[in-house]
Amino acid sequence: MTPAFEHLQKCLKQLPGLGYRSAERIALHLLVEKTERLPALVNALQEAARSVRRCGRCGNLAEDELCPICADPTRDHGLVCVVEQVPDLVAIERSGAYRGVYHVLHGKLSPIQGIGPRDLNLAPLIARLAGGEIRELILALSGDVEGEATCHYLTEHLASGSAATPVTVTRIGFGLPSGGGVLYADSVTLKSALEGRRDYL
Amino acid sequence: MTPAFEHLQKCLKQLPGLGYRSAERIALHLLVEKTERLPALVNALQEAARSVRRCGRCGNLAEDELCPICADPTRDHGLVCVVEQVPDLVAIERSGAYRGVYHVLHGKLSPIQGIGPRDLNLAPLIARLAGGEIRELILALSGDVEGEATCHYLTEHLASGSAATPVTVTRIGFGLPSGGGVLYADSVTLKSALEGRRDYL
Repeated sequence: MTPAFEHLQKCLKQLPGLGYRSAERIALHLLVEKTERLPALVNALQEAARSVRRCGRCGNLAEDELCPICADPTRDHGLVCVVEQVPDLVAIERSGAYRGVYHVLHGKLSPIQGIGPRDLNLAPLIARLAGGEIRELILALSGDVEGEATCHYLTEHLASGSAATPVTVTRIGFGLPSGGGVLYADSVTLKSALEGRRDYL
Repeated sequence: MTPAFEHLQKCLKQLPGLGYRSAERIALHLLVEKTERLPALVNALQEAARSVRRCGRCGNLAEDELCPICADPTRDHGLVCVVEQVPDLVAIERSGAYRGVYHVLHGKLSPIQGIGPRDLNLAPLIARLAGGEIRELILALSGDVEGEATCHYLTEHLASGSAATPVTVTRIGFGLPSGGGVLYADSVTLKSALEGRRDYL
């Protein structure tokens, strides 16, 4: 095919979930089948790149100073869920089970990859804790080594010292996924599930 | 999420093979994780939209007057494979089994959908046949009703009448796919496979 086509295909292939064939299919779709969709897609990309930025308070995607969640007065601003990345926030929002606000770290501590506390979005969280508005910090970080390290760091350095009022720190539960059977769970999950057992009424 | 984000997600979701979740994942990837890829993708799309056009001879994607295949002197320009769409051409090229040139119809005859001979890329094919350079026309059209109708039309109206020199018209073989068993083939395929049997040496 032509150089510009192959370059477009290469750019599309870098996107998550797209392989060589699906990138080729999308490029042909935009250049042959539905050419009217190409300028619309370019506009949507440019518009999103221009208007979407980081929320000054929580680090979520925003178009104004604050993201829609931080700007929503009906949400519980005393309850802050700490997540690693924006997709984690999106997943929790999708569950519909949470009415508090968020704080996105944009990473997790990883000495091996050279990611220290300064590389995380921590300064706004310290400011929020110092403001005294936060009642509970829910750590929704992953269950791997880096997630554990980040949880420890947050508990020791932030929640205990810098808050104006006492802050409860909790961590989301680990255990069997919904619909999952004991037989198919790995041993670390079963260990977490046993440790995380609760009174059954 | 924000309106610009949701608009981008909606545009991505229209692309073939992308659903709600994969569109969301790509939008987050471009706006949060790898923001440097967004302008590169926009440039690739704009560059492709600007430079890619239809080959004046065969209807394939081209950046110059002729596509890379028509401009290649090492290919057999007396052998023309007629396909419905550019992706069909790409699929045949990928097989590596063909060294002739192509003609892309950009559709097939379909009275139900109101697609007649005037809606197909036929005029350049008539001109090519009148030029007398074509030795054989291979019809690589689909095996459905519209494909059959298009094959008949091409045979009756083009290959017989307008060519300066006699043109052989062939159609690609139908039968069992590679690795396919007789047990799992549908009856139409088996009928084609029986009709298309060849001497076995």
